[in-house]
Amino acid sequence: MSETPEDHARHNARMKRMAEARARMQARRTLERGLLIVHTGNGKGKSSSAFGMAIRSLGWGMKVAILQYVKGKWETGERSFFEAYPDLLRFEVMGEGFTWDTQDRARDIAAARAAWERSKAMILDPEIDFVILDELNIVLRDDTLPYEEVLAFLRDRPLTKHICITGRGARPELLALADLVTEFGEVKHPYQAGFKAQKGVEY
Amino acid sequence: MSETPEDHARHNARMKRMAEARARMQARRTLERGLLIVHTGNGKGKSSSAFGMAIRSLGWGMKVAILQYVKGKWETGERSFFEAYPDLLRFEVMGEGFTWDTQDRARDIAAARAAWERSKAMILDPEIDFVILDELNIVLRDDTLPYEEVLAFLRDRPLTKHICITGRGARPELLALADLVTEFGEVKHPYQAGFKAQKGVEY
Repeated sequence: MSETPEDHARHNARMKRMAEARARMQARRTLERGLLIVHTGNGKGKSSSAFGMAIRSLGWGMKVAILQYVKGKWETGERSFFEAYPDLLRFEVMGEGFTWDTQDRARDIAAARAAWERSKAMILDPEIDFVILDELNIVLRDDTLPYEEVLAFLRDRPLTKHICITGRGARPELLALADLVTEFGEVKHPYQAGFKAQKGVEY
Repeated sequence: MSETPEDHARHNARMKRMAEARARMQARRTLERGLLIVHTGNGKGKSSSAFGMAIRSLGWGMKVAILQYVKGKWETGERSFFEAYPDLLRFEVMGEGFTWDTQDRARDIAAARAAWERSKAMILDPEIDFVILDELNIVLRDDTLPYEEVLAFLRDRPLTKHICITGRGARPELLALADLVTEFGEVKHPYQAGFKAQKGVEY
């Protein structure tokens, strides 16, 4: 770097002003309650980001429950890891395979219904501080579950815990209800370059 | 759902065709090697998604190293969690505070240099399968590290491990080099509604 002491002094003064502006901004942020979080979009990372929040919560001693609505073909690393720590969190896979694998609409609908009933119990369980409903967006998008029913329940959810819903194609009504929404945009994916799904990254 | 058996039969046949198309697509994906992964954008989830991939990798018995370039003001849940499992992964925080907190450009530059030297050692360590360089994009964007030097090293990286670099404002040259890039777009953030940062979500 060809930065002079004068450059550094200017930078440091600018950072001091930025710190003051940030402090004023943060002083206006006073609300605190359970958040409804939605991860959607076609990019990679929607589920792994939810798992990262699970780790954060576990680090704070919060109780976490994860329910997966779509069971992948293969064993996953997160499942192997989380199932090794049953005291830390509940990890349940209740969905059937991807719809193109089951090829059985009636079975998909029954599995989604059973998973939603379980999800409601987790959300209402006072022991649980963070509920992750992985790929719920998919079954709402495909009408495998009636989304009006799900949204009505979420509208009256207990505000004492965080809920994170993942999956592409989130319903606009869900985005409107949510407190935190991130759109995961796919800029570049190894599949495009002919890479197969790899351990630690895709599963 | 007011779906008839005929609707279901049509759906199931469509899914069968989709499964066949997907199988043909997957047969073309044969490459396998360590990926260079970049999480960027202004949305939330760049770091937590990397932590989620760490969990996946740990579930497969892979060795993981995480180095944080920007030390937050507060203790984080992921740090408490990961530090409780020293056998599972290395978790190091080498950066100074945010630039607006340190207000000391020379100190930021020295800290980024030390962190980069450590990062190179992690990337070259044959024991480590997955290296996460959290917020490296920030110091590259701000020229706190010379990005040409970092990119030259990454161009010749060992292809035996995955590397994930997070932080907003990723250099276009880094995106060009990467195998997997996700842009985290902020659709809705609780800060906007006056919420303060909360445990398990932001830290």
